[in-house]
Amino acid sequence: MRILIKNTETDHSKKDILIEGNKITRIEEHIDTPVDKVIDGTRKAVVPGMFNGHTHAAMTLMRGYADDMPLMPWLEEKIWPLEAKLTEEDVYWGAKLACLEMIKTGTTTMVDMYHHFPATANAVDEMGIRCMITHAGFDFGKPDMVENYKKTVQSQLEKMAGYSDRINYALGPHAIYTVSADLLKWVADFARHNGLNIHTHLSETKGEVEDALKNFGMRPVHYLKKDGLLGPNLSLAHCLYLDDDEIKILADNGCQVVHNPASNLKLASGNKFRSADLKKAGVTVCLGTDGTCSGNNLDMYETMKLAALTGKVAWNDPTMWSAEETFAIATETVETVTGIKAGKIEEGYLADLSLVNLNVPEMTPNFNLISNLVYSANGNVVDTVICDGKVLMENRKVPGEEEIMEKAAQAAFNLVRR
Amino acid sequence: MRILIKNTETDHSKKDILIEGNKITRIEEHIDTPVDKVIDGTRKAVVPGMFNGHTHAAMTLMRGYADDMPLMPWLEEKIWPLEAKLTEEDVYWGAKLACLEMIKTGTTTMVDMYHHFPATANAVDEMGIRCMITHAGFDFGKPDMVENYKKTVQSQLEKMAGYSDRINYALGPHAIYTVSADLLKWVADFARHNGLNIHTHLSETKGEVEDALKNFGMRPVHYLKKDGLLGPNLSLAHCLYLDDDEIKILADNGCQVVHNPASNLKLASGNKFRSADLKKAGVTVCLGTDGTCSGNNLDMYETMKLAALTGKVAWNDPTMWSAEETFAIATETVETVTGIKAGKIEEGYLADLSLVNLNVPEMTPNFNLISNLVYSANGNVVDTVICDGKVLMENRKVPGEEEIMEKAAQAAFNLVRR
Repeated sequence: MRILIKNTETDHSKKDILIEGNKITRIEEHIDTPVDKVIDGTRKAVVPGMFNGHTHAAMTLMRGYADDMPLMPWLEEKIWPLEAKLTEEDVYWGAKLACLEMIKTGTTTMVDMYHHFPATANAVDEMGIRCMITHAGFDFGKPDMVENYKKTVQSQLEKMAGYSDRINYALGPHAIYTVSADLLKWVADFARHNGLNIHTHLSETKGEVEDALKNFGMRPVHYLKKDGLLGPNLSLAHCLYLDDDEIKILADNGCQVVHNPASNLKLASGNKFRSADLKKAGVTVCLGTDGTCSGNNLDMYETMKLAALTGKVAWNDPTMWSAEETFAIATETVETVTGIKAGKIEEGYLADLSLVNLNVPEMTPNFNLISNLVYSANGNVVDTVICDGKVLMENRKVPGEEEIMEKAAQAAFNLVRR
Repeated sequence: MRILIKNTETDHSKKDILIEGNKITRIEEHIDTPVDKVIDGTRKAVVPGMFNGHTHAAMTLMRGYADDMPLMPWLEEKIWPLEAKLTEEDVYWGAKLACLEMIKTGTTTMVDMYHHFPATANAVDEMGIRCMITHAGFDFGKPDMVENYKKTVQSQLEKMAGYSDRINYALGPHAIYTVSADLLKWVADFARHNGLNIHTHLSETKGEVEDALKNFGMRPVHYLKKDGLLGPNLSLAHCLYLDDDEIKILADNGCQVVHNPASNLKLASGNKFRSADLKKAGVTVCLGTDGTCSGNNLDMYETMKLAALTGKVAWNDPTMWSAEETFAIATETVETVTGIKAGKIEEGYLADLSLVNLNVPEMTPNFNLISNLVYSANGNVVDTVICDGKVLMENRKVPGEEEIMEKAAQAAFNLVRR
């Protein structure tokens, strides 16, 4: 399949972009070559697909079910009871809805941690985006849960051959307060042995750090280090409460950190994400939406704006989180975290990209495309999405979207009534 | 003109809404009466038009022109030099673009403070929304500027009869650091004598409060009190740095406060807006976008989300700024500030409303309409807008939108090159 995008206005100069197979192969002022499909890029800009570094996709089913509550009652009274009733079918439709929402807002790769792995894998496979999928691991120190998790992971990994290579299987121990040290060590070994990435929550709240000091006698990063988890294959969601030493250790070990501003704000977890110190130390910082119970959406454009605006005010510095830096964080980091060559509009890169509509008020005037994308737009400016060289959305229409919304809404209401 | 909206799904029950002239006259399960126009409300919710309590509409022309800078170099090197070159024609197209953006995101009333008043008035008049328009007043203590401002205001007020009653003329002294005490006193008297509202900036930065203490020997609210400005006809933009005594004085005088989260965050002005204390004291709090140089958009849905999320984290309380309270703040307060009976979907209220599309991923599932609107949606969920009983947008199309974007973009680029 060869796709030619004509006349895009990315840099105030018109360019044509040729996609052959799943790669961008030529970017020139005029390309005239026979192709299977021509896309008119007039009054549109071509930008890399967004990378959502942390989410729980199928939580779309619980969007708006419970808000404005303190963390623990919210989890214990509302979210966990619903999650305990989730079926594989529910997760399938929830993940389909999540993929739909991500495509509609220009995200082409996500990192997911949830239950019922095969349901999410099937949904992602069908919808055409990329996902580093982890099966959420919990053992609460119970031996039967440890064994069960090990077996589940091994069996899931064996079945990966049946999925598209857009799906990248990784390990997802939930957090240091829900997974035992023994299981964490096993995860580290298993990942090393099988060349897998690891993704976990870390230092999301001040309480988590205080508990780690009390229960383990050390701060969270030191605890992960002791259990052998640190390495360039580890990405950590949240990391709101790191000290200088922890930042240095993460940098020395090549770990990545995923900032989730919407969730951190809504749950009042905190807003002092140490982006400048992490950057200075050389740690790759990415952005995530978190799940839609705390988010409450999967729009990475909004996430960019939240990260930039709240970063500036938290550190009393309006020059921090510049539009250009924020945009790069939301796109280019996909390469560091997942290892795929994507996140840039350059020859040789994967054809994971969006066409953004410039002909809307919020993109007018177009003095600075990236400023408009970060500070003014939201994900609805995305008109067309291509992932892995295939068109997933054109003119804001995704094939089958009506059925996905209907089935997901049914699943959500049935879940609450069950 | 009679408009009938059929089958809207606002409260999980289907309702019909009848609009006669410029008012909502009936809301019932089934209305069958001859009308001039029927709007299909299936899979749509009817919500009040948003009230944008503080903006500088024509600054749309400078969107994305300068970002990520400290306040003073940003103003002195970038914004003020451009503003000095603005023509009435520029402001007209900038205000048209602003009105277009507001209609597209469901705002039906704004409070504007800018230069070239007639240009903004003409733009608003043509676009069909409501505006409390103030001509920005500055004198920097210079007698000729004082006289000039007085003459301008008197002549503008005389010409108001030529405009639609959707335009509400008010006085807009810029701030206590740009307007002399003498002119402030004149403004207070002139407003009282002519039954006009007053709108000004106050306590936007910590430095402004420090300067007031140094230059006037008192905090900003005390200074306004001394000059006779306080009263129920006064709305104040920002008010980030109020002490307890100032909050009590504002409450005792019936003043309103407009919170502008995007601008306060982006310029790193602060995030400790004392909403809970203002509410407890009985002060009406509204929301505004501020101008698009600091905003950078005019989307009140995004403003609701920013206010709620950053309010929760600033005060470490996830129960603050609940979705319902935030939505009411963004809509119902129009009545207190401008005196018009709007901001609610009730019989007898002005027909200033939107139809919101429920058939999009970010509104699915619809457990809680208001939560979805505040936490998940952005202004692009607005499908149809009615103001003063007239349809301004249907199926996201506003008549003449292409020309407005083209002319505003031209004006913007010419302004920079001039």
